[in-house]
Amino acid sequence: MSAKREPLFNKVALIGVGLIGSSMAHAMRRADVAGHIAGYAHTPEILERAKAVGFADSFYSDLGACVRDADLVVLAAPVGAFAEIGKAIAGDLKPGAIVSDTGSVKAAVARDVGPHMPQGVHLIPAHPIAGTEQSGPEAGFAELFDGRWCILTPPVDADAAAVEKLKTFWESLGSKVETMDAQHHDLVLAITSHVPHLIAYNIVGTADDLETVTQNEVIKFSAGGFRDFTRIAASDPTMWRDVFLNNREAVLEMLGRFNEDLAALQRAIRWGDGDALFNLFTRTRAIRRSIIDAGQDSAAPNFGRNSDKPQ
Amino acid sequence: MSAKREPLFNKVALIGVGLIGSSMAHAMRRADVAGHIAGYAHTPEILERAKAVGFADSFYSDLGACVRDADLVVLAAPVGAFAEIGKAIAGDLKPGAIVSDTGSVKAAVARDVGPHMPQGVHLIPAHPIAGTEQSGPEAGFAELFDGRWCILTPPVDADAAAVEKLKTFWESLGSKVETMDAQHHDLVLAITSHVPHLIAYNIVGTADDLETVTQNEVIKFSAGGFRDFTRIAASDPTMWRDVFLNNREAVLEMLGRFNEDLAALQRAIRWGDGDALFNLFTRTRAIRRSIIDAGQDSAAPNFGRNSDKPQ
Repeated sequence: MSAKREPLFNKVALIGVGLIGSSMAHAMRRADVAGHIAGYAHTPEILERAKAVGFADSFYSDLGACVRDADLVVLAAPVGAFAEIGKAIAGDLKPGAIVSDTGSVKAAVARDVGPHMPQGVHLIPAHPIAGTEQSGPEAGFAELFDGRWCILTPPVDADAAAVEKLKTFWESLGSKVETMDAQHHDLVLAITSHVPHLIAYNIVGTADDLETVTQNEVIKFSAGGFRDFTRIAASDPTMWRDVFLNNREAVLEMLGRFNEDLAALQRAIRWGDGDALFNLFTRTRAIRRSIIDAGQDSAAPNFGRNSDKPQ
Repeated sequence: MSAKREPLFNKVALIGVGLIGSSMAHAMRRADVAGHIAGYAHTPEILERAKAVGFADSFYSDLGACVRDADLVVLAAPVGAFAEIGKAIAGDLKPGAIVSDTGSVKAAVARDVGPHMPQGVHLIPAHPIAGTEQSGPEAGFAELFDGRWCILTPPVDADAAAVEKLKTFWESLGSKVETMDAQHHDLVLAITSHVPHLIAYNIVGTADDLETVTQNEVIKFSAGGFRDFTRIAASDPTMWRDVFLNNREAVLEMLGRFNEDLAALQRAIRWGDGDALFNLFTRTRAIRRSIIDAGQDSAAPNFGRNSDKPQ
């Protein structure tokens, strides 16, 4: 141990050991950036399952004990629980510690956690744009953040050294890091993540409710496009409920735009305006190309699904 | 040659050699079900590209010459071109030939092609529920139809032997085959394919139009869900324009249901009804499971995208 280089953080406390928390633990071990990883789970069952996978050095069912002496505390729980967690850990935080999170909304973090933070503790909210439709401590893997963006939303008066350290941390986990204002983050994510999830959940619900088409038919013939939406609509329900409740304004704003555009498309179909349809369908192709060029998706047809692809 | 078993069809004519037509040619060769494969392309450029790949035995820029002596003629072109093609090939069809297609809408095929068919020719519309977001003669591959459903919509007075022969043909290409009424097909596909494509095209267009979020941000942070929609929204514009123009009623009906449900979700977000959100998000998870169990999608997280997954 003594011959090794100093780790970036002596102790990292993960509040939540589901998909994101466990993936962070795996990635921290891969990068060797934490002297000690402590994991907290809010139920005995999840704690036992996390212990069985064994990605942390210690496991706690007590918040205070988990964060004590930690140099970095990461809230990797549903955003709706943040206020309560912030309040519960406040008294046990080490002076100078960085408190961060992995929530998909960011203005709510400053609002809910900020007021509880003692003087000298650095609250720097963060959001790794990575995930899968699976959840739980068994779902994590070290490569989850590789090549994905992590957005930091430090308050205007944040300690520059602490922000820099958190940036280095996420880069060591494989991420590319960008910094922006929390409100802008919430607007960007509303269109790139929250509204897409909402409409995916919605159409899967619509299909499930039909009387004229059976559920069996929906399932059998889903390869026509519907199945793509079901993946997103299989994401963690608690996490996503909290996202929508905590990013209300931005989601409603983007949803308003979506609805307006959809009404125009609906009208084009009703009146047989083929040119309007063709023009939109041509324009959208270019965006896919840009996403592939930016390394944010696979160029393989059908995402390279192993069941569908030859090469 | 003389020692080989008789192929299912002596000559198959493919009217259209894009993703679907070329995949059929590859799959026919794999299964050895056609004595001769003839391919037609409607532009000299596509014809040359198809010849370069070389998946057919002969290539034509003349419709009549392509279908002459064919036992099976398959229209694998955008549905909007079917009426014209039906009229153009009518005089050259072999008596007893089967005329089929691969269009994503089915009532329109009987309406547009049916009136042109001479006595003794069997029109049996078909729809293989398979594809990728890529198009053109280079995009095809033999495995495209493996394990996917192909729906036949024979008219009520269809020749039973011809229907059976077409069923055997699609099974030899790897498909599972189901038969249903054309109107019901159009309703089922409206929810499993057409409306999902429409809302994917729509949200990609909405994101492209925003002033408050840059296109660069949309592309960088697309891993949050948006990128999934861009794959579908990269599908062939002509094909999809024709689908919406030719399945208007069913699409508008399903879109009405989608909009109604989305309005309820929007209201739940506005009023902070977390239970309504949680209940929907829980229900939709089960549908994903059923689709995986039915072998219609990969169980791997993120569709097993090679860029994201370790196992």
